[in-house]
Amino acid sequence: MTKLEHVEIDGDRLQHQIDELALISENPPPVVTRILFSEADLRGRAFVKKLAAEAGLRVRQDAVGNIFVRWTGQNPQLPAIATGSHIDAIPNAGKFDGVVGVLGAIEAIRALQRAGLNPKRSIEVIIFTAEEPTRFGIGCVGSRLLAGTLLPENAARLKDRDGKTLESWRKEVGWADEDLHSVRLASNCYYAFVELHIEQGPLLEKENFPIGIVERIAAPSTLRLDLTGVGGHAGGTLMPGRRDALLAGAEIALAVEQAALNSGSPDTVATTGIFRIEPGAVNSVPCQAHLEIDLRDTQTHTRDGALAQIEKAVREICEPRGVQFELERVAADPPVICDPRLVSLIAQTCSTIGLPFKRMVSRAYHDSSFMAQICPTAMIFIPCRNGWSHRPDEYASSDQIKTGVTVLAHALVSLASEG
Amino acid sequence: MTKLEHVEIDGDRLQHQIDELALISENPPPVVTRILFSEADLRGRAFVKKLAAEAGLRVRQDAVGNIFVRWTGQNPQLPAIATGSHIDAIPNAGKFDGVVGVLGAIEAIRALQRAGLNPKRSIEVIIFTAEEPTRFGIGCVGSRLLAGTLLPENAARLKDRDGKTLESWRKEVGWADEDLHSVRLASNCYYAFVELHIEQGPLLEKENFPIGIVERIAAPSTLRLDLTGVGGHAGGTLMPGRRDALLAGAEIALAVEQAALNSGSPDTVATTGIFRIEPGAVNSVPCQAHLEIDLRDTQTHTRDGALAQIEKAVREICEPRGVQFELERVAADPPVICDPRLVSLIAQTCSTIGLPFKRMVSRAYHDSSFMAQICPTAMIFIPCRNGWSHRPDEYASSDQIKTGVTVLAHALVSLASEG
Repeated sequence: MTKLEHVEIDGDRLQHQIDELALISENPPPVVTRILFSEADLRGRAFVKKLAAEAGLRVRQDAVGNIFVRWTGQNPQLPAIATGSHIDAIPNAGKFDGVVGVLGAIEAIRALQRAGLNPKRSIEVIIFTAEEPTRFGIGCVGSRLLAGTLLPENAARLKDRDGKTLESWRKEVGWADEDLHSVRLASNCYYAFVELHIEQGPLLEKENFPIGIVERIAAPSTLRLDLTGVGGHAGGTLMPGRRDALLAGAEIALAVEQAALNSGSPDTVATTGIFRIEPGAVNSVPCQAHLEIDLRDTQTHTRDGALAQIEKAVREICEPRGVQFELERVAADPPVICDPRLVSLIAQTCSTIGLPFKRMVSRAYHDSSFMAQICPTAMIFIPCRNGWSHRPDEYASSDQIKTGVTVLAHALVSLASEG
Repeated sequence: MTKLEHVEIDGDRLQHQIDELALISENPPPVVTRILFSEADLRGRAFVKKLAAEAGLRVRQDAVGNIFVRWTGQNPQLPAIATGSHIDAIPNAGKFDGVVGVLGAIEAIRALQRAGLNPKRSIEVIIFTAEEPTRFGIGCVGSRLLAGTLLPENAARLKDRDGKTLESWRKEVGWADEDLHSVRLASNCYYAFVELHIEQGPLLEKENFPIGIVERIAAPSTLRLDLTGVGGHAGGTLMPGRRDALLAGAEIALAVEQAALNSGSPDTVATTGIFRIEPGAVNSVPCQAHLEIDLRDTQTHTRDGALAQIEKAVREICEPRGVQFELERVAADPPVICDPRLVSLIAQTCSTIGLPFKRMVSRAYHDSSFMAQICPTAMIFIPCRNGWSHRPDEYASSDQIKTGVTVLAHALVSLASEG
């Protein structure tokens, strides 16, 4: 029997910790709300740091609040293996999104310690700041800064809905001793990054797989569109002279759908999720429309093709209708292809343990999307009930979580043993 | 010189009153928003009552809030001459729609008083409740009840978007002492009704006529449509399985436009004026859409053809998209032919004063549409800039208004003098 066979996850203690962290919330149970810089967010961070300290792990926090929990390896000079996720939660959320990947990673290290393992490379759990976009309207603030895809100058100027900047918040909570420029990591800093997460989709449960291995992470793009036509009385304005902003918006929403359907990839999804018109009276020709469009894909070229098709459609639809438009690409992050060697290693780990697994796409995006820009990255998914997430009844069983953490622990120690 | 030649409208005071009333709004100037039962609506009503009292006129209010301002004639038993319009305003509207016919009518009476006229019949200014459909989705609530085309039982049950009924509102604002059944007028109650209004269309300005005399009023129909699809995460819900309520709504809005364009009559106009979706988040597939559609025509048969085409389109669009619908015809009122004798009398008045006039169609509908069901009715139009209405830059000059009020005053006194 190898030491690896002694790796035994303490599922009960882990469940207890997940339940305890869930009580640190801006809302009463079962609702979890932990928005960046809220009292619940700060208390949640303290809770995680306490757990890390209890496990004898070294804790460090960077200038944007990313927390690094390190189990030092035999050869501390070698790039470490990183894992982790986030503990912030959108309003009215549940207790597993992100948390499973944070508390699960700390428990994985404890289980490796208990099994007497002492790997070559250090293993580091990262608790990323603000994976959720609630406060600043942009997700993955911490991992974007780590990867250098968000410039420190731009991050500092991010404003919440009260107009308060990230920089002001950093000062208020006492993180401003170091400059945001210090957050960015060198590209040889980590040997690999593996994130454990609930699926937030229904496939694993439906197809009865305990483990999903993410091969690609879809890239989100967001478009914001303002249409300005000419209003008027619905009775007095004859049809030929109309410049109806709603009708231009309606044609564009249908063009968004077509762009996804005709992208050439079944993975392209496009949604007009926000559609507001002014003045919004039954007897008034709509003079304005505001659309927000979400486009995701697993491949850059089909995503960019769909984006271009939408932008072309906007021009072609607005011109004959005499409707003016302002179109803004709010975000267009690159899709991620997970590291094939990491994916194989996790697959091998599952086979060794005797767990069936599904290779899959993550249609939600994650801190992994940005970690992938600085080191080989992969994700381990576990099922969640009905695919529900971002709601209080989000659920994964203790056993499902324990299985995921077991795979994570095995994968981490395999990687940490590589020379 | 007859007394009629002494009738001199005080255009400056009238303009001042219009400007003052415009400041009573839910939004800062130049935007006028006065939705039924809002604080602005209630304050606007108080403003008009104060003006009436200052002119020594008797004020009465009925159970739905229609206000009657009476200048008692020499023979109070004779059916009175009625005039008037409305002071409610849709969101983001201007200051002339309706108001010109209310404040103008009060000024017309004051001018007749100043000229020493003392006509046989009483003249009554009616300020109709909720000509605009903003709160309850149906326009002309007050005049419909006066004419008996809206049953009191049905009116009481009208609900606003918060689910609050007309009956609850009546109680809240203190109008519930009398029952809604008391609102309906006897059909011999008035000798005639003449409404002064801005054109809300471009023809008078374009053709340089100071006065329009309305011979027909287009018939409005209103459709209310609720679409129910299936929501989901914009990233996790692939395109083929989607049941997006917004996209069904977008197709329907375009079909509404086509129904008007293909009706066979250039007078058919159709507008999707309300379009709301749920949940309205950029990363969520819309699960619900609410549309309100306004269709107008001067001929019943082309209007009904377009209505049928829209209803057919709703079915044909929703089925393949897996979207459920509830479609309601909120109103489908008959087109109105104005009283030929009244039209001639107003034409004669214009000729006597020396004003060119245009006989025309009203494409907007008015309280006149319903008053026409209980007494001979006609309308006087004045130009408005660019035909704009239902927007903050709606405009008619002091002189244009003064001319309209002059014609109204002459017409009212002629009618009030008839035996």
